[in-house]
Amino acid sequence: MTDRRESALRSWFLGPRAENAALLEGLVVEALRDHVFWRRNFHPEDGFAIRELDKRSEGYEDAVATLTQELLGLLAELKRDVPFFSSRYKGHMLFEQTIAGQIGYFAAMLYNPNNISAEAAPVTTRLELEVAGQLARMIGYDESRAWGHLTSGGTVANFEALWIARNIHYLAVAAAGAADALGLSLDVELPGGSRAPVRRLSLWELLNVDNAAALDLWHALWSGAPDADVRRALAGHSLSDVGYQDYSLTLARRYGDALPAAVVLVAATAHYSWEKIARALGIGANQLVFVPVDPSFRLDPDALWARLQEFAGRKTPVLACVSVCGTTEESAVDRLDRVIEVRERARRELGMAFHLHSDACYGGYAAAITWREDGLRRSGREIRRSTGTSWPEDDLVDAIVALGAADSVTMDPHKLGYVPYPAGAFLLRDRRGRDLVAVDPPYLSPATAERADDELFLGKYIFEGSKPGAAAASVWLSHKVLPLDERGYGYLIERTAIGARMLRDALAAAELGEFSVHVLPEPDINIVCFVVRHTGAGTLASLNAFNEAIYRRMSINAATPSPEYIITRTRFRTPMYDGAMAPILAALGVATVDEWKAAGSEGLVVLRSTVMDPFLASTAQGTNHVAGFLAALGRAAKAELLASARE
Amino acid sequence: MTDRRESALRSWFLGPRAENAALLEGLVVEALRDHVFWRRNFHPEDGFAIRELDKRSEGYEDAVATLTQELLGLLAELKRDVPFFSSRYKGHMLFEQTIAGQIGYFAAMLYNPNNISAEAAPVTTRLELEVAGQLARMIGYDESRAWGHLTSGGTVANFEALWIARNIHYLAVAAAGAADALGLSLDVELPGGSRAPVRRLSLWELLNVDNAAALDLWHALWSGAPDADVRRALAGHSLSDVGYQDYSLTLARRYGDALPAAVVLVAATAHYSWEKIARALGIGANQLVFVPVDPSFRLDPDALWARLQEFAGRKTPVLACVSVCGTTEESAVDRLDRVIEVRERARRELGMAFHLHSDACYGGYAAAITWREDGLRRSGREIRRSTGTSWPEDDLVDAIVALGAADSVTMDPHKLGYVPYPAGAFLLRDRRGRDLVAVDPPYLSPATAERADDELFLGKYIFEGSKPGAAAASVWLSHKVLPLDERGYGYLIERTAIGARMLRDALAAAELGEFSVHVLPEPDINIVCFVVRHTGAGTLASLNAFNEAIYRRMSINAATPSPEYIITRTRFRTPMYDGAMAPILAALGVATVDEWKAAGSEGLVVLRSTVMDPFLASTAQGTNHVAGFLAALGRAAKAELLASARE
Repeated sequence: MTDRRESALRSWFLGPRAENAALLEGLVVEALRDHVFWRRNFHPEDGFAIRELDKRSEGYEDAVATLTQELLGLLAELKRDVPFFSSRYKGHMLFEQTIAGQIGYFAAMLYNPNNISAEAAPVTTRLELEVAGQLARMIGYDESRAWGHLTSGGTVANFEALWIARNIHYLAVAAAGAADALGLSLDVELPGGSRAPVRRLSLWELLNVDNAAALDLWHALWSGAPDADVRRALAGHSLSDVGYQDYSLTLARRYGDALPAAVVLVAATAHYSWEKIARALGIGANQLVFVPVDPSFRLDPDALWARLQEFAGRKTPVLACVSVCGTTEESAVDRLDRVIEVRERARRELGMAFHLHSDACYGGYAAAITWREDGLRRSGREIRRSTGTSWPEDDLVDAIVALGAADSVTMDPHKLGYVPYPAGAFLLRDRRGRDLVAVDPPYLSPATAERADDELFLGKYIFEGSKPGAAAASVWLSHKVLPLDERGYGYLIERTAIGARMLRDALAAAELGEFSVHVLPEPDINIVCFVVRHTGAGTLASLNAFNEAIYRRMSINAATPSPEYIITRTRFRTPMYDGAMAPILAALGVATVDEWKAAGSEGLVVLRSTVMDPFLASTAQGTNHVAGFLAALGRAAKAELLASARE
Repeated sequence: MTDRRESALRSWFLGPRAENAALLEGLVVEALRDHVFWRRNFHPEDGFAIRELDKRSEGYEDAVATLTQELLGLLAELKRDVPFFSSRYKGHMLFEQTIAGQIGYFAAMLYNPNNISAEAAPVTTRLELEVAGQLARMIGYDESRAWGHLTSGGTVANFEALWIARNIHYLAVAAAGAADALGLSLDVELPGGSRAPVRRLSLWELLNVDNAAALDLWHALWSGAPDADVRRALAGHSLSDVGYQDYSLTLARRYGDALPAAVVLVAATAHYSWEKIARALGIGANQLVFVPVDPSFRLDPDALWARLQEFAGRKTPVLACVSVCGTTEESAVDRLDRVIEVRERARRELGMAFHLHSDACYGGYAAAITWREDGLRRSGREIRRSTGTSWPEDDLVDAIVALGAADSVTMDPHKLGYVPYPAGAFLLRDRRGRDLVAVDPPYLSPATAERADDELFLGKYIFEGSKPGAAAASVWLSHKVLPLDERGYGYLIERTAIGARMLRDALAAAELGEFSVHVLPEPDINIVCFVVRHTGAGTLASLNAFNEAIYRRMSINAATPSPEYIITRTRFRTPMYDGAMAPILAALGVATVDEWKAAGSEGLVVLRSTVMDPFLASTAQGTNHVAGFLAALGRAAKAELLASARE
């Protein structure tokens, strides 16, 4: 099977030397002509708006000349773009896209569907829901209860997750207020498992009803009175209607105390967009509480437990906890199974409940490695047999399998799904949650009230108001060609993980004369982080300057328009990296953790190479880019040392 | 010139019968090969990851077979998509895209740039800023002071507008608190023109500092103390940091009264996304105040003034006012010049200040009609000479020219810019406002601190975290071929306005036997709304049912998979349409305004045809689709009447 997969892999991409150019061109022309003849076959009795004779007029010819000339100009400009397709690019999470993704996008783009309703996209909204179902299944959701859709990217997907989480958090409060106004008596299940009348609960208890119980309560409310009455009652009690300002004042009045503002716990290595999202939603950046990571950059479950105890003690509600599956800097995968254990314990021992979200924007597709062709899960041992390495460890597999227990998961097809931008995805375990953010656009409601139509009416439940159906077709076709299991994406991602390990091992063993390379812990997926030392580097600042200089020599800028290999870098700063720095700094020997903390925004410059390239691992074929990378790094380091000596 | 433009128009699109198929195919293949040979020329010394022999393996051949087969399946599915390209499609704001937009998208998509930073998209981020500059100039902004960028669509663009507006609204409060903490004494300009120390102002006064004064104050604060100190002080006083809950309680404590929650005034016909946005931002749907429209569906300036007086009396701050340029239902353009007069008066007489936003998502590109080739404005008379009709009236031109005075404007290139999804645009008159939503992603900061680099680093200032550089290339190339003036988009939109008028006039004059067509007021741009009556329709409900049935017969659904012509419909409901209904209902004679109000969500069903098709106006060439449309409408009405008689 490996051989077949290896052969199939060689057909999936245009290729670093455009080896599959004929294949792609054939399909592009096919898709274009197919569209052209669709138009020709649509009411062939209609006349021609553009006649052949029109094309001989000066105005037409001039306009075509302008178009062609400007396109040539654009193509020339694009030559200055970054060669993501090349095995020489080892920087950000960017690579080329699958041919299926490209051709699917192009084919559907000619039709210009808008995946906001079936009326504007009868075909591609269906494909989008199909794709969302596939992703839900891959992460272990029960497809019949889950719901999902595509977004323009990870930020919007994560925003939807926290938006829904925020509304669920205040749901029991809203239901209690509305039930009161309607004279209804409703029960709700508490974290301990007992049931109580909602009107008897304290604010703390209301803010610690878990998602399922809150949504049950919600449905009990709507079935307890006519819709119009419930809607009216809720308008005075839901955060979405009332707005934060009055809500806060009302809570303070009604419950004697608004309690401290609810916090959002995020892994310290989480994406910067979480700050943006917390600010925008009105939650406030101060309410983002970073949970320390361990030396492998994974959220530390013990630290999470300590935080939860602390918040319970101060009666500070927790709105959500954001765990990460594939950090953008290190591809670290939180041990979600252990996070879930902590959440269970908090429910039992502290009476706390909160929304658990996994930001799997980068790493989500890695779940494909856990599936066999026959639809059963693969064990860690089975996958290791396929990779022929010690990757993945069993606990990484456990963490990935645990995604199915998160309340919501986001993942970006335009990252490890290898399709063109824009394609993010939002997945919700309990589909009922989407009703909390639903609105009714007057001009997009379906012609009939059939449920099937309503399902296709995405605009009702999502944040964006228009989105390319082409993106759905792109992801759909790519999933058809690369199944979300060991045959397709699973294999592809395995190859990148192997390549990343080869690169890391080579860096660790590198003999670069007066330089040594310190590699950071083995990545959970495929991002290799390292620091280059020269024997003379005595301080944190000089080490940082040296690595920053290497980065400049190995990235595209005015001084180096065409570097041999391309990498990127990041900066590990306090407090985000506090939990991970001790072993790194001990090995580097230029500063203690306290000195690094005191250096503040100086941080530690870390060089970074994302290995999304599945061909790196095939050193038997083509150029050995692992060796090439090492040699280029050595040359860059040496040149920098010489240059700084001359100064 | 008209002849030249008419000829050029025939080269801009693939065409309803794919008349320009050879042109598009030639360019597509050119762009693809150009990319292929870029790859071949990049380090030609590198070996081949995919060898010719690999292509003969069974695994490769099977994978190609799967790809081709699934693509053929997708192409077959797409045949069930909606023929937006055809002159027979007269429904939503959907049409085909310019060839320039399509080929620009395709060409850049092969490179897969992510317009979040220059590192991930050195070429297309530059193109994006160039495009934003063009749009800013078109609406009359001073390009050197303005800022803008592309988004995935109108909802995200409008969200950014209100997000920034919210932060500006509370800016003086934050600055006052921070200045206090830092022991700084700062002055601010009040709406009346006088200056006062910020610490002496009441909460009402602080919430009524206008945008420019607030941003001046902001800069004074940052230059009054070291950055780190200001940052620390602001963390305790800015809404973004503190979050709404604590902020509301703090205001109540500090100023003795938090004042009523700030409202957002929106034209009653505004897009449904405003509700979503107000909910998400924590402002609350209850704080959305709808300002009545006039019988032409434009925001009524007198009603706005009355609302402002009322709010001033109750000391309710106004966070923003949203005016619309091109409603999604009717293409109505608010008389923004008059709205601005009202705002000036509110400042003078009521001491009120607020952010003024124009939601020009649909209509913004119509500003192209106001520009001559030489960069000067065209008068209404000049444009009318070009259209040969009474359109556009002078006051429509005045309203469009007034866009330059709005604090922010959004417009969608993927609507009247005729480019593929996703392409929205957000434009801000005073670029300093973007700092209020800025964050610093650790791994995307530019290699050097040069200002030019920072400008290309879009990710710092925008909501989304990744977006297709291809969209920027698409808009850029389309603007190159169709300039934003009388030669390009101006001409294109003129043609659609003429087509819409022809359709409306034909409907108004239609003799359809037992049916009469009541046309709604002449649209400001190109959406024709109408209601079909049959002599027997006696009630609002039966009239609605009849028009709903006609819509079903003229839209794609299970019963009518291929209607002759395709339209859509909307429902005018109270209170949104209160100001517009009297003349419509009087003409229809089935209900009084009070009866219509009492009918609530029943509303009035209105049939709707968006004319984005520039060829409709050319009845001399091809099929006369105005006549065809009328005949099809007559047949649909007759068939419906027969069917309902049989029941």
